[in-house]
Amino acid sequence: MQKWKILKTDVALDNKWCTVHKDMVELPSGKIIDDYFVSIRPDVVLVFPLTADGKAILVRQYKHGAKEILLEFPGGVVDAGEDSIETAALRELREETGYFTAEITALGSVYDNPTKDTNKIYFFLARNVEKLHDTEFDVTEDIETVEVSVSEIAGLIKEGKIKVSGSIAIYYMAMAALNK
Amino acid sequence: MQKWKILKTDVALDNKWCTVHKDMVELPSGKIIDDYFVSIRPDVVLVFPLTADGKAILVRQYKHGAKEILLEFPGGVVDAGEDSIETAALRELREETGYFTAEITALGSVYDNPTKDTNKIYFFLARNVEKLHDTEFDVTEDIETVEVSVSEIAGLIKEGKIKVSGSIAIYYMAMAALNK
Repeated sequence: MQKWKILKTDVALDNKWCTVHKDMVELPSGKIIDDYFVSIRPDVVLVFPLTADGKAILVRQYKHGAKEILLEFPGGVVDAGEDSIETAALRELREETGYFTAEITALGSVYDNPTKDTNKIYFFLARNVEKLHDTEFDVTEDIETVEVSVSEIAGLIKEGKIKVSGSIAIYYMAMAALNK
Repeated sequence: MQKWKILKTDVALDNKWCTVHKDMVELPSGKIIDDYFVSIRPDVVLVFPLTADGKAILVRQYKHGAKEILLEFPGGVVDAGEDSIETAALRELREETGYFTAEITALGSVYDNPTKDTNKIYFFLARNVEKLHDTEFDVTEDIETVEVSVSEIAGLIKEGKIKVSGSIAIYYMAMAALNK
């Protein structure tokens, strides 16, 4: 199995908040597709924050793609020039929830939509988080912090109360890492 | 917590394969954002196909957003005018793998990227699937079917060999539904 060859890339949309490329590609079969659209998106971090007494910290906020108020784990875009992805994860945790820790472990990276989007999502497990800071929201953010006992999360997923694939995946990957 | 009010929608990119809207929105705070970009994407189905002898059916294919060959569960876009989402799930299963069954159950719907994309992903559990048909690929598809014992999947996720958030989420949700 082979990758596709990019013959030409046109910028279909070029904006600070949204960049789309139109690629002309050659498939391994020799077939040429002249308009394969790819959204160029920045990498993202997602954090599973766990307190010493077995609570997970989630965030509830309005998401304008879905047009719904959703419950997810904290995370966000890795800033250009940021030290490391781990720094980005701890910054997003602090900004969105005020919680912090020094105990952070990578759980791996995934794609949300590898067909259409370029970005990866880096998953982190943050242990023994504590509320040490005030939240710091971006202009589009209005975030409610929600503390949930870890034992309740599988039920929230089953009931459709947590319904974002990254948040579901990170919960189960964190549980596997913790051997629970 | 309130949803945002859409004051105006401009079409930033309008193509058969890629539609992007630029919304002018009013936040609950009264703040106005004049360029919030949203990708209008069709709903998607994802299927966890299980054979009578405990094998899951996966697909390996090149994904041009990620520029990688990836192992995932079968799925795809719900066609306009398709009877039901369940029909779409069984059609994608048949086209991508040749496997089929009459035993299909909904596992719920999720978002991959509720911040930027409009679409949902509908998860299905397909039990007692059998290889009954030839595969039928779209022009951009070149798909390898991979049969894996269900007991190996958690290991493949841990090793980063399955690394798409929807595929990770559907595996664990299927396991929960099967009470394993």
